[in-house]
Amino acid sequence: MRLLIVNPNISTSVTHLIEAEARRCASPATTLTMATAATGVAYIETRFEALLGAHAVACIAGEQAGSYDALIVAAFGDPGLGALKEVLDVPVIGMTEAALMNACLLGPRFSIVAISARIAPWYRETVAANGLLERLASIRHLDAPLRDAGSVQEDHAARLLELCEAAVREDGADVIILAGAPLAGLARSVAGRLPVPVVDGVSSAVLHAEALHALGVRKARAGSLAAPPPKPRSGLPAGIETLLRRCQSPR
Amino acid sequence: MRLLIVNPNISTSVTHLIEAEARRCASPATTLTMATAATGVAYIETRFEALLGAHAVACIAGEQAGSYDALIVAAFGDPGLGALKEVLDVPVIGMTEAALMNACLLGPRFSIVAISARIAPWYRETVAANGLLERLASIRHLDAPLRDAGSVQEDHAARLLELCEAAVREDGADVIILAGAPLAGLARSVAGRLPVPVVDGVSSAVLHAEALHALGVRKARAGSLAAPPPKPRSGLPAGIETLLRRCQSPR
Amino acid sequence: MRLLIVNPNISTSVTHLIEAEARRCASPATTLTMATAATGVAYIETRFEALLGAHAVACIAGEQAGSYDALIVAAFGDPGLGALKEVLDVPVIGMTEAALMNACLLGPRFSIVAISARIAPWYRETVAANGLLERLASIRHLDAPLRDAGSVQEDHAARLLELCEAAVREDGADVIILAGAPLAGLARSVAGRLPVPVVDGVSSAVLHAEALHALGVRKARAGSLAAPPPKPRSGLPAGIETLLRRCQSPR
Amino acid sequence: MRLLIVNPNISTSVTHLIEAEARRCASPATTLTMATAATGVAYIETRFEALLGAHAVACIAGEQAGSYDALIVAAFGDPGLGALKEVLDVPVIGMTEAALMNACLLGPRFSIVAISARIAPWYRETVAANGLLERLASIRHLDAPLRDAGSVQEDHAARLLELCEAAVREDGADVIILAGAPLAGLARSVAGRLPVPVVDGVSSAVLHAEALHALGVRKARAGSLAAPPPKPRSGLPAGIETLLRRCQSPR
Amino acid sequence: MRLLIVNPNISTSVTHLIEAEARRCASPATTLTMATAATGVAYIETRFEALLGAHAVACIAGEQAGSYDALIVAAFGDPGLGALKEVLDVPVIGMTEAALMNACLLGPRFSIVAISARIAPWYRETVAANGLLERLASIRHLDAPLRDAGSVQEDHAARLLELCEAAVREDGADVIILAGAPLAGLARSVAGRLPVPVVDGVSSAVLHAEALHALGVRKARAGSLAAPPPKPRSGLPAGIETLLRRCQSPR
Amino acid sequence: MRLLIVNPNISTSVTHLIEAEARRCASPATTLTMATAATGVAYIETRFEALLGAHAVACIAGEQAGSYDALIVAAFGDPGLGALKEVLDVPVIGMTEAALMNACLLGPRFSIVAISARIAPWYRETVAANGLLERLASIRHLDAPLRDAGSVQEDHAARLLELCEAAVREDGADVIILAGAPLAGLARSVAGRLPVPVVDGVSSAVLHAEALHALGVRKARAGSLAAPPPKPRSGLPAGIETLLRRCQSPR
Repeated sequence: MRLLIVNPNISTSVTHLIEAEARRCASPATTLTMATAATGVAYIETRFEALLGAHAVACIAGEQAGSYDALIVAAFGDPGLGALKEVLDVPVIGMTEAALMNACLLGPRFSIVAISARIAPWYRETVAANGLLERLASIRHLDAPLRDAGSVQEDHAARLLELCEAAVREDGADVIILAGAPLAGLARSVAGRLPVPVVDGVSSAVLHAEALHALGVRKARAGSLAAPPPKPRSGLPAGIETLLRRCQSPR
Repeated sequence: MRLLIVNPNISTSVTHLIEAEARRCASPATTLTMATAATGVAYIETRFEALLGAHAVACIAGEQAGSYDALIVAAFGDPGLGALKEVLDVPVIGMTEAALMNACLLGPRFSIVAISARIAPWYRETVAANGLLERLASIRHLDAPLRDAGSVQEDHAARLLELCEAAVREDGADVIILAGAPLAGLARSVAGRLPVPVVDGVSSAVLHAEALHALGVRKARAGSLAAPPPKPRSGLPAGIETLLRRCQSPR
Repeated sequence: MRLLIVNPNISTSVTHLIEAEARRCASPATTLTMATAATGVAYIETRFEALLGAHAVACIAGEQAGSYDALIVAAFGDPGLGALKEVLDVPVIGMTEAALMNACLLGPRFSIVAISARIAPWYRETVAANGLLERLASIRHLDAPLRDAGSVQEDHAARLLELCEAAVREDGADVIILAGAPLAGLARSVAGRLPVPVVDGVSSAVLHAEALHALGVRKARAGSLAAPPPKPRSGLPAGIETLLRRCQSPR
Repeated sequence: MRLLIVNPNISTSVTHLIEAEARRCASPATTLTMATAATGVAYIETRFEALLGAHAVACIAGEQAGSYDALIVAAFGDPGLGALKEVLDVPVIGMTEAALMNACLLGPRFSIVAISARIAPWYRETVAANGLLERLASIRHLDAPLRDAGSVQEDHAARLLELCEAAVREDGADVIILAGAPLAGLARSVAGRLPVPVVDGVSSAVLHAEALHALGVRKARAGSLAAPPPKPRSGLPAGIETLLRRCQSPR
Repeated sequence: MRLLIVNPNISTSVTHLIEAEARRCASPATTLTMATAATGVAYIETRFEALLGAHAVACIAGEQAGSYDALIVAAFGDPGLGALKEVLDVPVIGMTEAALMNACLLGPRFSIVAISARIAPWYRETVAANGLLERLASIRHLDAPLRDAGSVQEDHAARLLELCEAAVREDGADVIILAGAPLAGLARSVAGRLPVPVVDGVSSAVLHAEALHALGVRKARAGSLAAPPPKPRSGLPAGIETLLRRCQSPR
Repeated sequence: MRLLIVNPNISTSVTHLIEAEARRCASPATTLTMATAATGVAYIETRFEALLGAHAVACIAGEQAGSYDALIVAAFGDPGLGALKEVLDVPVIGMTEAALMNACLLGPRFSIVAISARIAPWYRETVAANGLLERLASIRHLDAPLRDAGSVQEDHAARLLELCEAAVREDGADVIILAGAPLAGLARSVAGRLPVPVVDGVSSAVLHAEALHALGVRKARAGSLAAPPPKPRSGLPAGIETLLRRCQSPR
């Protein structure tokens, strides 16, 4: 299968982290293509930044339409995810929803460890939008300013481990989610040092994408994920225009 | 006060409906400016269309920054609302949230009457995101295709009234919200024929905007509505660039 | 419009605080009348005290029926509010519900700062009854005994500010509600010292009352806020008798 | 034990129904005293009527204070219940909460069958205030006008049975609650004709009152059911004055 | 009435604690029979141990079928409770559900004090399955290893009292539940030292069993507690075979 | 990987349906072993039957311990799932939880189509225990008696399709789950005839098991899924004894 992974941020260093983890877990039969947002910010922590990321992902999804069999939105908070599921006829997986579903398979309650205080409310809203607040034990986060989104894992290694341990010990977490693309791959290296399973969004998303592709799941033609009804439109970027034209064409 | 009302859709006929209702209820001391999305679709029914509307509103909000004392996002589902609250230092009100809050003041449980089947799940998500599902009695909607967003009120007058009556009689609604900018102003004309209060999003938003302006509410400098932290960015439209630059400047 | 504000407590010093804030924010076109409960306690902290306040407000509402266009119940927990909405044909606004709705317009999650430990569970129940527990970040409160309900603001100025700051820093509050009539007007003076918006119940209620009056909202004739059905009754105070007689008369 | 059962309505015919059922289930060691509200309405269907009933029950509770070992509030919606629990040092049981707790012991989900459409929203609020909405399968109710509160059971016997059966068949009820004092005792006579357990509020309350008395449960001296803190008061009826004086006296 | 109390654990020392408390509160007209699980573990703290306890209780319930008028499942988490309610035609009461219902009658919010950290998540799930999370103020627990399930009360007397006090002071508990059969009877001895009511599971269950028996509640013939439909089965222990045969026989 | 799939029912015809679907979707690198409960009933519809199935699965899991790298509990309602996750050091997946997580990845709200009326409340409880009630649009079910668990798909083909269509059209389902092992594989054949994605529990579970195995997820050593603490036990079947001995041995 052809899998397109889109980083909704403009940081190519983060794209490289995502790609490295994706290659570690993808099936040999999967062809990976990476894309980095052409417009936006270095990493998403807020609703406004997510709005920018959502738009950028939609443009890429349209520009490359037809060249992939599944798409992963590889940033915190799944910017644009529900919107893309309406217009694409292939599986679209968000890094956050993928991590949440794996966490639910691994234990009754999970905690999220995140890279900044600012990001925490936005992640809580994402969990709520997934209907899973009841299973959220806590969100813990780094407090120090980030030198670079691409080096968070090294810069704050010890503190990240402490946050995970505290979530288990004090908050009742049965599972830890290491959240945010800048932490891609970290779960793999800290798993041996933590007493509960640790979930990584990128590998979760890659494996779910492969599974849904293997199951041959079809695009909704009814319900809230059917294609938006055709109607007058104007002034849209080429990629977005492509998405709407394709999904509204008779099949 | 200077009030900017942005229609996130490209339909100027709907902008006129919004304007007419806004002028009927605005204080004489309020200067109204209307804006219509430069890009997007005729009316928003889905998450993807809301993503387009959110981006369009953000561009306008930035292009006109400094020229208004409050901003109303005048479309169904409040596209981009939370994002704009982060970057603007004036009150930002969504038509939906304004209607929900007034409905809550008028009765324990409300029903929403909407213009299409397709729009209903998206409105349910908006109510959920406002934390108010518990007070939602039902969502009822037109089923016929819409000839034109600007003429829904006349084309479907009798059916809309029936939907309202059924919500009171069968669903336990204490209040009705007539939802969607294409229904702007309808509450005023049907109020006398319905046995419970009827809420209109435009007039609710205008009065809330005037009230919050009068109270002199300040922009958050902490919490999840503080300005996004400065970080590298690139490729953004001028309006959006303006929003980020302004909100991240030292005051 | 003629606005009646009823303090359900017997403390005229608190009535003066309420009046002062109401005058600061009311429109010049609004005629304010203040009333203080003839029976009851100095300030309401519990369900039993709220029962007394509810009865006292109902008596006043009936005794003055016909002389006001909107009524505000100006005490913590909105005693008697739902009951009065059934029998009055003008808008009835509670100080708490008004503050909650404004807080929701100003941010995703709010904290409440209150005047005593005892009052906290009662306020939590009020938030729950409004269906808004999901948006409640925390309730923080003074712990010291109150010298006088009328002087809480001065006696505990520094501690109140600390509680607000802690709610933002530790509980994730995007908005602060200063709760209870004894704190009326305090939001105005501390707003500049807090990093998030601060909501005052009195000014919120006054502006909502003016807005609902301006919108010409009608009394429910169906649903749970319609007038109670006529049935035998006996032994009721004159004011309450008036309320029932008026609302059950054919119009 | 000495058990006082207070009917918060003025209908002595309903008091007789309550008494008859209470006598059928009370232990021989229990001395029953009945009281009927001196002021109020014939039967409670709304929040305003509940406010009147709450005040009337409080007066009686105070007037007879010291003469009973437990008190039952015997009307729909438990008017004044939480308030009385603060001031009385003996168990206070509401007919509705007693029925809800027994229903929960008898099955996962219950339906409520009630005497009027108007009463349904008020009962739903009571279930919500008890935190049990999740277990509520449905509320079904008579639709015809009531000739007399004391003769509902005979006047509408067949229809009441149909409502119960429909709740089991269509709503997934595992248990039926026959709600409202006018239906007191009906559960006993229809039990044999229904395929699920049927709960009666009066008998539930009597047995819970006897059980809590037998367990020797003590009055709260902390938490939200402790006595209200002493503070200035004025103008209160003798019964209410008694309640406050007694609960605030040093023990 | 003939009351069978089954301890789902193999600890006879705990059975004795349960029996002692049951004898202190049972009516003279009640004949008590105690049973201890023939297979299983010393005390239940986890889902796996509860599975074992559930199976053991079912075997005993079947082996003694016909010899009791009500059955109490006397262990933490009510192992097998819902299952037994389907197959038995007499009231079946769980120690936990009984305590929860009494706690709800005694105050708005309760805390649970438990014997180990490990047991806490399992108890939280039980509260959730009862639909009462909203009323749960907190779960506090001993942290030290247990020398013996039968001597927890003496070994940790002071610490248990501290946990109760902290729940009232810091968590907002209006009522305390002392949870787990090893704490049976403790409520009685500490009641005088705590400022809120204390609930014991064994005495709660005994009194509820007597009450439901007195009310003559019938076995469900419809809904989710009706007998399981007859179908092929094989290899079941004699006791379980008896339960299915009896409940599926025509009556 | 070596994958053990256990049918908690005694129906080998259903085991064959499960196996057929599992073989259609399993990776070539996966070695499948099937097991059928030695004791229990033909198919599980109730809590009591689930208790029997849970015990039977635990025995098999222990008897074959060490011979598999992941285990699937292949019956409706995931009997014994949480218990097994505590004692096994390999991934354990339930058919229901697997279907729920895939449904969540495919759309905001799902409906469940089930084989009998009786099974519906039990499935609702399973969804609730997974914390996903908010996303449940409806449960629809066959009403006719089942001739044989192994032939439900053929016997009721048309009706099952109608139920799926009604869930989309009337209940707002974005995804359909065909629930229960007797429907294993049906999703594959009806997918082309339904306008929304259809989820099958068996294939969902197989792919999740392969994914969690590939990710190398480790057994919890803390939290509520750690091994139960060692303590006295007696009388347990050999398989269960093996499970406890293995998980409590030092590693």
